Amino acid sequence: MLSKNTVKFIKSLHQKKFRNEEQRFFVEGEKSVLEVLNSSFQVSILLATPQFLENHQLEVSKSSCEVISVTQNQLEGLGQYQSNDSALAVVKMKSNESFDFPLGQLVIALDDIRDPGNLGTIIRIADWYGIHHLVFSTQTAEFYNPKVIQASMGSFTRVKFFYGDLAQIFTKWNSPVYGAFLDGENIHQMNKLEPGVILMGNESKGISSDLENLVTKKVTIPGFGEAESLNVAIATAIISDNFKRLLS
Amino acid sequence: MLSKNTVKFIKSLHQKKFRNEEQRFFVEGEKSVLEVLNSSFQVSILLATPQFLENHQLEVSKSSCEVISVTQNQLEGLGQYQSNDSALAVVKMKSNESFDFPLGQLVIALDDIRDPGNLGTIIRIADWYGIHHLVFSTQTAEFYNPKVIQASMGSFTRVKFFYGDLAQIFTKWNSPVYGAFLDGENIHQMNKLEPGVILMGNESKGISSDLENLVTKKVTIPGFGEAESLNVAIATAIISDNFKRLLS
Repeated sequence: MLSKNTVKFIKSLHQKKFRNEEQRFFVEGEKSVLEVLNSSFQVSILLATPQFLENHQLEVSKSSCEVISVTQNQLEGLGQYQSNDSALAVVKMKSNESFDFPLGQLVIALDDIRDPGNLGTIIRIADWYGIHHLVFSTQTAEFYNPKVIQASMGSFTRVKFFYGDLAQIFTKWNSPVYGAFLDGENIHQMNKLEPGVILMGNESKGISSDLENLVTKKVTIPGFGEAESLNVAIATAIISDNFKRLLS
Repeated sequence: MLSKNTVKFIKSLHQKKFRNEEQRFFVEGEKSVLEVLNSSFQVSILLATPQFLENHQLEVSKSSCEVISVTQNQLEGLGQYQSNDSALAVVKMKSNESFDFPLGQLVIALDDIRDPGNLGTIIRIADWYGIHHLVFSTQTAEFYNPKVIQASMGSFTRVKFFYGDLAQIFTKWNSPVYGAFLDGENIHQMNKLEPGVILMGNESKGISSDLENLVTKKVTIPGFGEAESLNVAIATAIISDNFKRLLS
């Protein structure tokens, strides 16, 4: 049975302050909840409709979480989805663990990406291209924001991430940093590159000048029309696609 | 001076029904309003702050529209932007004019793209890649929806579009149709193609089976990780990028 306290607890997780205090976040919808049940994340509470519980007995029983059977109406008042006929999971955050540069692989670095939808979409793109490591400046949107989780479509379960000072990290790693600029080398004409960091800048200001000094090579997506720019998630996808093509 | 009737009229344009009856839509924000003033669209009414009118005297005087000076507060109650310190334009729609296949060029065709944000983002991508012609199935989101206009970031002024029966159009054109599928030819390994139609399918159902029969070649963005799919606007960007690379 769903208690008032549980309702209050889940509603508090809409706010970053309480997510940080409780070290919990929530995940909604059948696909994402199944992904998180099958991941290395630890689910604390699963709220699900009888239908979801019947269809996914195996996944639910494998998890040692508290299970609460709820109606669709109850679910829809809790999360941010307008419609949710399946499940919502309360999940324990992972700590902010640093990692070394993964040799032979690509890393995506984000300098102050503020929009949660952009961050979630970039996580999904990273997962598509098998880019398992992401580093974020401390001003980048919060990984556990419900809009990030939603836009990542379950891909948040499959990436490693770290928030920190990008300048310090790049200096320590000493691997090539490819920064996305409007005046760099045409990415269609590049024919050789090494695995390194793909660095994407803030939605309106681009890459900050202290990081620009640490960029090994500026790269640019060639434009053929008159649009002044591309959305940062779109640009991340196109650059990742070109890098994987060149490195494969 | 801003009359109650004008306020009522602009508010009615939030609804598709009234946009169609009046054959008018609205555009918000400094960048987009300037783009529409400099385009072949006909602006009927310009609501702008004194600051905007002072900064852009030339653009405003070139237009023969009714100009109403308003405060930021008045603007913010009218459109959909939470903040707008510049302008809002009421603009005359263009009619749905068919076009022939533009020889030697690419065309983007959308089969029931329902999300206005996706449609607007795709229009911006088309403009970036110099793809000036788009055709839409009749169930695709409405070009003049405020969310489409917003997401296109002014690029809506630079594309030609037509809503119609895609099967009939493709049959008439008799040009190659490249459809985006999950089981097509790896786009990184293609080395030759002709200008033709890039066909993208609905967000959840993909390309409908009657159009699949008219596809000349299925193309696929190679995945290297575990994400099941990419957002349709992201996929359109990556395919357009590969096509422009191969055709340049």
